[in-house]
Amino acid sequence: MSKPKKTPRPKAETPKGFRDYFGVEVAERKTMLDAIAAVYHRYGFDALETSAVETVEALGKFLPDVDRPNEGVFAWQEADDKDQGDWLALRYDLTAPLARVYAQHRNDLPTPYRRYAMGPVWRNEKPGPGRFRQFYQCDADTVGAASVAADAEICAMLADTLEEVGIPRGDYIVRVNNRKVLNGVLEVADLAGDDKEAERGIVLRAIDKLDRLGPEGVRALLTEGRRDDSGDFTEGAKLSELQAETIMKFVNSYDPVSERLAREASNATNEGDDARADQLTGARYSVDGTFADREGRLRYGDYRWIWNQRIIDHLRELVGSTNIGWQGVEELQQILDLLKASGHSDCRIQIDPSVVRGLGYYTGPVFEAELTFDIIDDKGRKRQFGSVAGGGRYDDLVKRFTGQAVPATGVSIGVDRLLAALREKGRMAGEARGPVVVTVMDKQRMADYQGIVAELRQAGIRAEVYLGNPKNFGNQLKYADRRGSPIAVIEGGDEKAAGMVQIKDLILGAQIAQSATLEEWKERPSQFEVPREHLVAKVHEILESQG
Amino acid sequence: MSKPKKTPRPKAETPKGFRDYFGVEVAERKTMLDAIAAVYHRYGFDALETSAVETVEALGKFLPDVDRPNEGVFAWQEADDKDQGDWLALRYDLTAPLARVYAQHRNDLPTPYRRYAMGPVWRNEKPGPGRFRQFYQCDADTVGAASVAADAEICAMLADTLEEVGIPRGDYIVRVNNRKVLNGVLEVADLAGDDKEAERGIVLRAIDKLDRLGPEGVRALLTEGRRDDSGDFTEGAKLSELQAETIMKFVNSYDPVSERLAREASNATNEGDDARADQLTGARYSVDGTFADREGRLRYGDYRWIWNQRIIDHLRELVGSTNIGWQGVEELQQILDLLKASGHSDCRIQIDPSVVRGLGYYTGPVFEAELTFDIIDDKGRKRQFGSVAGGGRYDDLVKRFTGQAVPATGVSIGVDRLLAALREKGRMAGEARGPVVVTVMDKQRMADYQGIVAELRQAGIRAEVYLGNPKNFGNQLKYADRRGSPIAVIEGGDEKAAGMVQIKDLILGAQIAQSATLEEWKERPSQFEVPREHLVAKVHEILESQG
Repeated sequence: MSKPKKTPRPKAETPKGFRDYFGVEVAERKTMLDAIAAVYHRYGFDALETSAVETVEALGKFLPDVDRPNEGVFAWQEADDKDQGDWLALRYDLTAPLARVYAQHRNDLPTPYRRYAMGPVWRNEKPGPGRFRQFYQCDADTVGAASVAADAEICAMLADTLEEVGIPRGDYIVRVNNRKVLNGVLEVADLAGDDKEAERGIVLRAIDKLDRLGPEGVRALLTEGRRDDSGDFTEGAKLSELQAETIMKFVNSYDPVSERLAREASNATNEGDDARADQLTGARYSVDGTFADREGRLRYGDYRWIWNQRIIDHLRELVGSTNIGWQGVEELQQILDLLKASGHSDCRIQIDPSVVRGLGYYTGPVFEAELTFDIIDDKGRKRQFGSVAGGGRYDDLVKRFTGQAVPATGVSIGVDRLLAALREKGRMAGEARGPVVVTVMDKQRMADYQGIVAELRQAGIRAEVYLGNPKNFGNQLKYADRRGSPIAVIEGGDEKAAGMVQIKDLILGAQIAQSATLEEWKERPSQFEVPREHLVAKVHEILESQG
Repeated sequence: MSKPKKTPRPKAETPKGFRDYFGVEVAERKTMLDAIAAVYHRYGFDALETSAVETVEALGKFLPDVDRPNEGVFAWQEADDKDQGDWLALRYDLTAPLARVYAQHRNDLPTPYRRYAMGPVWRNEKPGPGRFRQFYQCDADTVGAASVAADAEICAMLADTLEEVGIPRGDYIVRVNNRKVLNGVLEVADLAGDDKEAERGIVLRAIDKLDRLGPEGVRALLTEGRRDDSGDFTEGAKLSELQAETIMKFVNSYDPVSERLAREASNATNEGDDARADQLTGARYSVDGTFADREGRLRYGDYRWIWNQRIIDHLRELVGSTNIGWQGVEELQQILDLLKASGHSDCRIQIDPSVVRGLGYYTGPVFEAELTFDIIDDKGRKRQFGSVAGGGRYDDLVKRFTGQAVPATGVSIGVDRLLAALREKGRMAGEARGPVVVTVMDKQRMADYQGIVAELRQAGIRAEVYLGNPKNFGNQLKYADRRGSPIAVIEGGDEKAAGMVQIKDLILGAQIAQSATLEEWKERPSQFEVPREHLVAKVHEILESQG
């Protein structure tokens, strides 16, 4: 008989594209989720938590990556007797499950239904650096409200949320556009017909790349196509010069010079240099001539407001002859007016026709929140942090289930990117304080140490007894150091007999060890002997002194 | 050409065994998770969040359902060029991922590594009423601590956690046992050999069913087998009478009469009837004779303590001749002593040899938290709520990966069951207050309403503008009612012109409508007209009056 083959040891690894989050990372994300939930709640949204698993049928194929509509989810077939079980999949976003929930429970839900949801979503995509296959989203949507006021409200809430989590005004901008305006422009450019869907797809994706390719790159993609630096060629939409020109006018209504100026003015305002901000925006008014007659000082927020209004007027000209385009521009105008009324129209909102958002399902206003401060990327280059949230109106998603169109609009915040941004800016607390460590001097007296630690915990102090092998006392202090412990408590046999305990201030100890002279060392003791019954009071005192 | 087949509409349904959680349900669970995390944190545990997805290889086969070790997970194969991709699966608990994390990161983690984790886990099991395929767990484990003090600490923390989430002392009990004691008994009964694994399995499962089958049922399973009420026959372990007797002595060391007495005494204590509690436990001491010489009044906690000690002494006799059994009893003794030192030995801890816990991987102390109050089940029968948490020592789980045994112990709280228990007892706040609803009297003045709602939100008041079709005012009030709104704000054209707003106290309004006479109605107005600039102050005032 041959020996049974020994099973090899399993590899201790996460699957590719997944990762673990430890201690502070978990706490920071929780803090952010709580802050976002508080704003969503204040705006009247109710929590909803759906399961991670949906039927493939219910999820549909609305993945953002339009180039691969059939891929991107983790899916499997339910086992049944005949291998005919349902196909199930992990949700790839929180919007598809919402559409399913609304269709399923619409008779029991209020209309409009305002819900927020937060949790992980899964994408079966090729993982890359900083690109994971499980990540958090944090969504709020209003289902059953056709009014553009619902879209404006989402934009306002997005701005408030960013400030709530620690992005100051001026360091972000919510860009707003309307798919209907683009549809109007496409109609003007004779690209509205059913037979032009392929061209429209290329146009949409080309505009989406304005940021990266610039106007020349976009124009190339609209016409013959574009060869990138690596030599790869991307086929173009083969539009005529006139058609391309119409699209480009639309794309260019958002003026990069104004944007740079607005950003500089924003920085100046942030630095308290109002005069400089006024000079910058004032200069722009003079150059334009348009606003030269305005009296006195112009604040940066006014400038953004006037500029936004001018873009809308420009778009109205571009699409004026088409119904859909006119409607889209009117909606943008209303959004701007409503945001002005709720106090969000200053430096926080930007009408920007280049915002198209990849998802095929948007039908009206679309928006995107961008962080505008510079960061240094992996290659040492200065660049803008970019988009951290986006959303828009999708009136057809519930229709898939019920046959009836249900108007809906919402936003999704990419929590992990937002966390990365805050860490980048040093705006996360980061360091977490470890527990007070009660050391074990005598293994036989474990009950005493448990008594000490129980007393500390009852006083609300985070504390633990060292539970490793207590033989080497140095290891216990090393452990305390590893945990970021603020204090070690020591009760040896002598102390016990005398009714005393030793309390070691580890933070002060580390500071002294690093920098103090011998004299300072003597003057500032970091270890105290106190009567056992003063333990809690002294620990409290030291914790407070550490801040 | 044939017409393209129209795709049928997808069904708007969760997959079988999954469900959605709305509003208050989400909030209540969050409150509980936060409370549990706070206790875990205070005990010195650090957060860890692993991904939902693991390789099947890393998860291993440790599902609690030992009868079907190969099933129970949702798994799928990664696509690659040759269909040779890794098998991935959703985690079925939080312990298997912890073992993987510790093996993977052990050089970067402190030892002992104390971590807590909370989140959903998935079981591919047949769903039933109240039995879902996704549910929350809330775990804390200490990895790398061989000391039984680690186990005692987990038991203490479990008790503290239950009280923190709202289960009062006396309404729960943490039952503690030790696998080693059982192993000693098995050795005494000549069931220790490698060739007796099948018998040991049957014995373990039989003891686990003591609760349901009673001593007679267990004894039947130990010997010839047992026929249940439906006529189904379960094969027994075919032990000799002597062997069965040895096992039954062990099982019976936990004495149901004492338990009933303890429970009644606990109830009496809870009701403030100390005399009755003393009488009950005192009576027991007299009956036993053992403690007849104890002086004066005996408190219920003392009784539990003495009873626990007696069980341990009894177990010591049963296993005295075996090494492993002796070690197990010593560990139980230490746990009891440590829990006494940390103040947990009163009515909160019960040594109970019938606790074996199904999972094959436990190697030492095992524990289970049980809620001891009665509930009325679906069939109208009074029964105990039962187990809400459990855990124990598993020293071999990390070894799978590294080849080296790593001592570990931990607990898992079934959050959904615990929530159900608290709801059952009416101890969840339950009702959540909806937002203040600003009604829309004039569609053209949406900007005004947005201004009102922005002001309320800035004052920290949960508020929203009605975003449905405003045509029918009654629908707006119905919506407010549906949302549980405390207040509706009304600003029609007349009010606007007069600089006033109407504020409707919906809670008071509903009360009056239900019960008041016409006179009361007139005396207690539930609608107020106030100057627009007093809006926030008046809303605050009404919210406060509503409590």
